[in-house]
Amino acid sequence: MQLLKEKILSEGQALSEDILKVDSFLNHQMDPLLMKEIGKEFAKRFEQKEITKVLTIESSGIGPGLMAALELGVPLIFARKRKSLTLTNDLVTASVHSFTKQETNTITVSNKYIEAGDKVLIIDDFLAVGQAARGLVDICSQVGADVVGIGIVIEKAFQSGGKDLREQGFQVESLAEIAELKFGEITFVEEKEGAPINV
Amino acid sequence: MQLLKEKILSEGQALSEDILKVDSFLNHQMDPLLMKEIGKEFAKRFEQKEITKVLTIESSGIGPGLMAALELGVPLIFARKRKSLTLTNDLVTASVHSFTKQETNTITVSNKYIEAGDKVLIIDDFLAVGQAARGLVDICSQVGADVVGIGIVIEKAFQSGGKDLREQGFQVESLAEIAELKFGEITFVEEKEGAPINV
Repeated sequence: MQLLKEKILSEGQALSEDILKVDSFLNHQMDPLLMKEIGKEFAKRFEQKEITKVLTIESSGIGPGLMAALELGVPLIFARKRKSLTLTNDLVTASVHSFTKQETNTITVSNKYIEAGDKVLIIDDFLAVGQAARGLVDICSQVGADVVGIGIVIEKAFQSGGKDLREQGFQVESLAEIAELKFGEITFVEEKEGAPINV
Repeated sequence: MQLLKEKILSEGQALSEDILKVDSFLNHQMDPLLMKEIGKEFAKRFEQKEITKVLTIESSGIGPGLMAALELGVPLIFARKRKSLTLTNDLVTASVHSFTKQETNTITVSNKYIEAGDKVLIIDDFLAVGQAARGLVDICSQVGADVVGIGIVIEKAFQSGGKDLREQGFQVESLAEIAELKFGEITFVEEKEGAPINV
């Protein structure tokens, strides 16, 4: 997605070989117009899938997820990482380990909102080793819902998550695929393969 | 806001005299069309304020905040309750105590995104005693930004936050004001004052 790649190049900061800072438009400050375009792009890529729910995880997935849900005309559900006072019954949980943060969270979804028969589009801001996506897939499989697609804003294609999930048969659509991060330098997958950035 | 009140009456659950569960459209599952209408309503109520930034707090404020920011054509910033790997420099913090959860969080905003001269609209899902709103006001005042309004989806008008903030001179606009919660029963402010619910 050209608009997103331009934003990453102009405002993203590669802090190391692993960490891309996109706080100015995605993870702390959000650009609402970019979020709207991201929602439209996800809706276009999954429009044949008869999606009934969009599922994401708090907090940075909520913006892209909400805009995708709006375009698709279905509800958004955001999995909780923290305990909620009102989210107390009928809970489905999964463990999600973050390698970068070195912590494990239990994520929680109510089985009132993701059910057997649902066709679920999973949306998240980043895909690296794929722990968060796998946790959401796990929750869907526990309740018998069908994961019909995984939409990612930025995939760190140099990590294993995207490859693994595609090999398991999931349609993973990433709007920007990072081939390599070096301090101060961001390379997209298409560039590395020799195609121009605006393909 | 009529659409919101109808949603609260049809899907909200008063769990006690303090706690209103609105997990089906605001705090866990989100209704994107309702969020869009909420964003429009906030934009309408604050359109004269020349807002430059919308500021909210993760996670449940992000949906209404993003839609308000989209309508107003300005960025959304969401304060972090949790530490972020990439949010490490130029931080402004405030303490927010939650009486219902009995916990104190340090909320964090980068002073790159809220600055002196900004005209800030604060958005949040709930207003009770007003700790979260006050934390966001505190952050704005630390950097010299001007809080020009506070938009709340659901105000628990039987608690002190709204009254206190209005007495301090803030324009607080709540789209639904709850006069009273009893187990299984929700009363809006207008009803209590004798006006019909659809005023």
